[in-house]
Amino acid sequence: MPMLKDPSEKYDGYEPIDIPDRTWPTQVTRKAPIWLSTDLRDGNQALQTPMNVEQKLELFDLLVSVGFKEIEVAFPPASETEFTFVRRLIEEKRIPDGVAIQVMTPARRDCISRTFDAIRGAKRVIVQLYNATAPIFRDIVFQSTKEDIIKLAVEHTHVVRALAIEYERIYGTVFQLCYGIEGFTQSEPDFVIDVCSRIKDAWDSHGPSPTKIIFNLPSTVECAPANHFADQVEYFCRNIPKREEVLVCLHAHNDRGTAVSATELGLLAGADRVDGCLLGNGERTGNVDLIILALNLYTQGIPPHLDFSDLGKIVESISRLTALPVHPRHPYSGSLVFTAFSGGHQDGIRKGLVRRAENPAQKWRVPYLPVDPSDFGFVYRPVRINSQSGRGGITYLLEQAFRFTIPRPMQADFYKTVQNMCDTEGRELAVSEIIAAFCHKYHFSPPAKVEELDRPVEIASRVALDSFTTFQEGPDEPVRFEGTLSVDHRDDAVCGRADEVHSAIGYALARTLAVEFVVMAKYIEPLAEGRGAAGYVRLGLEKETAGSQAGWWGVGVGCCIEEATARAIVSASNVALDQVSAEMGCCRKGF
Amino acid sequence: MPMLKDPSEKYDGYEPIDIPDRTWPTQVTRKAPIWLSTDLRDGNQALQTPMNVEQKLELFDLLVSVGFKEIEVAFPPASETEFTFVRRLIEEKRIPDGVAIQVMTPARRDCISRTFDAIRGAKRVIVQLYNATAPIFRDIVFQSTKEDIIKLAVEHTHVVRALAIEYERIYGTVFQLCYGIEGFTQSEPDFVIDVCSRIKDAWDSHGPSPTKIIFNLPSTVECAPANHFADQVEYFCRNIPKREEVLVCLHAHNDRGTAVSATELGLLAGADRVDGCLLGNGERTGNVDLIILALNLYTQGIPPHLDFSDLGKIVESISRLTALPVHPRHPYSGSLVFTAFSGGHQDGIRKGLVRRAENPAQKWRVPYLPVDPSDFGFVYRPVRINSQSGRGGITYLLEQAFRFTIPRPMQADFYKTVQNMCDTEGRELAVSEIIAAFCHKYHFSPPAKVEELDRPVEIASRVALDSFTTFQEGPDEPVRFEGTLSVDHRDDAVCGRADEVHSAIGYALARTLAVEFVVMAKYIEPLAEGRGAAGYVRLGLEKETAGSQAGWWGVGVGCCIEEATARAIVSASNVALDQVSAEMGCCRKGF
Repeated sequence: MPMLKDPSEKYDGYEPIDIPDRTWPTQVTRKAPIWLSTDLRDGNQALQTPMNVEQKLELFDLLVSVGFKEIEVAFPPASETEFTFVRRLIEEKRIPDGVAIQVMTPARRDCISRTFDAIRGAKRVIVQLYNATAPIFRDIVFQSTKEDIIKLAVEHTHVVRALAIEYERIYGTVFQLCYGIEGFTQSEPDFVIDVCSRIKDAWDSHGPSPTKIIFNLPSTVECAPANHFADQVEYFCRNIPKREEVLVCLHAHNDRGTAVSATELGLLAGADRVDGCLLGNGERTGNVDLIILALNLYTQGIPPHLDFSDLGKIVESISRLTALPVHPRHPYSGSLVFTAFSGGHQDGIRKGLVRRAENPAQKWRVPYLPVDPSDFGFVYRPVRINSQSGRGGITYLLEQAFRFTIPRPMQADFYKTVQNMCDTEGRELAVSEIIAAFCHKYHFSPPAKVEELDRPVEIASRVALDSFTTFQEGPDEPVRFEGTLSVDHRDDAVCGRADEVHSAIGYALARTLAVEFVVMAKYIEPLAEGRGAAGYVRLGLEKETAGSQAGWWGVGVGCCIEEATARAIVSASNVALDQVSAEMGCCRKGF
Repeated sequence: MPMLKDPSEKYDGYEPIDIPDRTWPTQVTRKAPIWLSTDLRDGNQALQTPMNVEQKLELFDLLVSVGFKEIEVAFPPASETEFTFVRRLIEEKRIPDGVAIQVMTPARRDCISRTFDAIRGAKRVIVQLYNATAPIFRDIVFQSTKEDIIKLAVEHTHVVRALAIEYERIYGTVFQLCYGIEGFTQSEPDFVIDVCSRIKDAWDSHGPSPTKIIFNLPSTVECAPANHFADQVEYFCRNIPKREEVLVCLHAHNDRGTAVSATELGLLAGADRVDGCLLGNGERTGNVDLIILALNLYTQGIPPHLDFSDLGKIVESISRLTALPVHPRHPYSGSLVFTAFSGGHQDGIRKGLVRRAENPAQKWRVPYLPVDPSDFGFVYRPVRINSQSGRGGITYLLEQAFRFTIPRPMQADFYKTVQNMCDTEGRELAVSEIIAAFCHKYHFSPPAKVEELDRPVEIASRVALDSFTTFQEGPDEPVRFEGTLSVDHRDDAVCGRADEVHSAIGYALARTLAVEFVVMAKYIEPLAEGRGAAGYVRLGLEKETAGSQAGWWGVGVGCCIEEATARAIVSASNVALDQVSAEMGCCRKGF
């Protein structure tokens, strides 16, 4: 049956909770919760091919290295693999001090017994006991009453506590109970309070416990908006007796695509602990993604106490172990996240990064880039070039590669070249293609190795500056420039000082090519770290006026202003000659 | 630089808005917003290879067929492709009545002019004019003051309105202004109100307009939790003058993974319209996913007024046109969403579906399955089998394939077989493998074609029921059964009525195999639609007691109880003989 015109015939809306004085909307999160990774349990049980013991060991080590102090390692009664894995962790002493393992078991005596067999000898264990409370489970799955559910929960809490006391005595194990209220979000709020109070009473009836009880409140299936989940959590936190003796944990699934938000609002509502998986793995649409949650705190200036400095490697490991891909747009972890295609975005990012380079101590403030990708070990490639891209992004790439800035009108000149390339290719251009195109167009040989290029760009030019020297005749005298210009293999001596260099080269060009160039615009920029100067000129024909947009741009880098200017003129004259050649359909001498 | 121990050195938290009497947390969404698809604009500009005109035409038709009444089709000044696409839509009369196209242009005279060139002759056009208001843009990108921003906005609103009036007169075009406040979430709330009031005044100053102004409030970059976005939207809705003359639109990005929630809470806060992309395509982490939003309404019983009945086809088209994958766990659209691997989940789903089949008029209430996948045209495969799977899922698959139910103890018997297969294979098993394994184990030839099997299962059995007949000697007489049993190619006549069939077959087996079987358990089930009956027996050796779990299960289907029983005994005896063969290491005659 396809989608219904009136879905209210088939689906009920959620029932709001009436808390007119709810406080969570006014709260602001100021610290990280206690984290519990369930990658090895809830994540693993949802894989097409669950992990084997070796894979689980690798993932466990990864979780420890990220900084998790509580790790759900298995559902020991489920299979031999699960059981063996727990035994190996303990027997091979793979659990560092300060890390507690959590194991999950339903409220069934045989499962609990198998679980305790698995954890024999562990130092710190959180036993997650669970049963379902929601009417949908009571009616359809178990055919049981509310009283049955309470009896089941209380009885097995006693079983676990008795075993815990025994293990504490024999092995010195420190135990903590985590009671999972399966179907919490679909249960009657007061019934949940009732069940949990009775569980706590049962646990406490054996005497004081060294640890607080954790109540785990899952959205087993996410079926209402995040604000409703927050209301449910606030209701629970307000009404559970002896709140201070209890830790409240959230375990959100993502059926409505709002697990991150549900968890964030649930924390505002008072929860202490969050349970989820890296990259949001888990049954169906997955559990909440702990990487997103942690980095959402980080970008608010809050230490998450989890270390994703090498996020690329973590993402690689998880996707290999789970055999699941990471979507290119997955927040923080996806390949397209720290990138921009649109021209406006590229321009904003470029300006933000330039500003940041000037004031590295300031707070991060880059338009369209909410966080510095290098914090997570990502090589920084924010800008991707296709037909939607603008001048800003292209300029940024060039400036990164060459370490000089490009004057605005020259940016526009090169932008046209890139647009033509995009139209012709109909695809994204590689950074190396953009850079090579710049070198080709302007007959520019970068003085230093450009990282983005695999090999130097080969350029054949009609005009070349073969050799030159600069000198000062006295301390207060201007710098003078003398060099040899080769034009179509004919050498010409050129010399001049500062402003005159371009005239000198102009004469030489005129002599050989029988054409009079005029410098219509000229920019000079000193390079950082005493690397000399970059010069940019626009040459025109004598008949053109300086206001015209016609002419040919050139760029040159040199050890001094004079050399930079000379090279820029050489560059521009080569561009002019290229255009003539192209227009003539062949490469002929003369202008 | 890797992640900082104290990120507050580098990142600022959001600044909460003080609205102690906020109302959005008490609201419940009861109807769908106005939808605007920006797949062809914001979605397209974020693609590695933007769509060509033909692809854009295909996507436009798809959006129309889904039911969008407002579609942002292009950013006409951006490129020839964008411009040409708009012209073709209009000139080829591809825009159905009742559908408005939206075009986007920055507040720049040349861009506006190019945009109006593109829309010449269209019937209904929403012009989305935008400029940035946030300090991060004012300071870093534009170096402009608040007054500059207002001036820019007001001036270009006049330009657009003047052109709109002219086009209205010449072409009869109905215009609507959508003003996009770029960087809304990072702007001062009162400044946004100021800018928008001034824009509205400018628009209204030319006389009455046939349409309401839309103010588009984007989270250009998502940088705070969803509740803060809702506060910002409520603040805007409360403070914008003449609220009733204005439509408030949301345009959320997903940098923190909370775009869906931000939009849902923003709607509670009073917004009227939502702008996003199918599957959440768009720059960086994407725009909000309109499929999720629409289906989140649907599963709350609210008509979304968008039709995703054929979701598989839509997903295929979008991923082909964008060249982007859909993650297997993507809500509603991913391949692993309507599936369950864990045993408990499989069992719950099975019970929920059985209950639903009994009461199809009841509301949807299936554990672990928040929505009926067949509403979206998905073929129903909720259960996937691997080593984490339980009896429930396996049973469900078999029952779907064979259309009979399997008694609990027999489920356990077959479950062991599947567990062995999973351990041996270390991977997910295909449904066809499970079904074939059942047929092989129980020497069961399904009487009808089983859809899940590509070809019939070939079975070699030592015992076979070659021919049989059933008859009644009179109307009140019991049904009698006569047949020929072949055991290792030796035929034996068997006959009996109801309860005696198994004895008759027992005698025949004993004669040939020199073994005395005892029927230790027997179940009979009438099949639906008069398709006869299914029988299940557990055979044991005479020395075993009925309480023992030993023995061999068998299953048979027949036109009557007698045939079903006979076939079940034949089945079980073949299972017994298989085991003996396996234990002897060869296939030898005799027991």
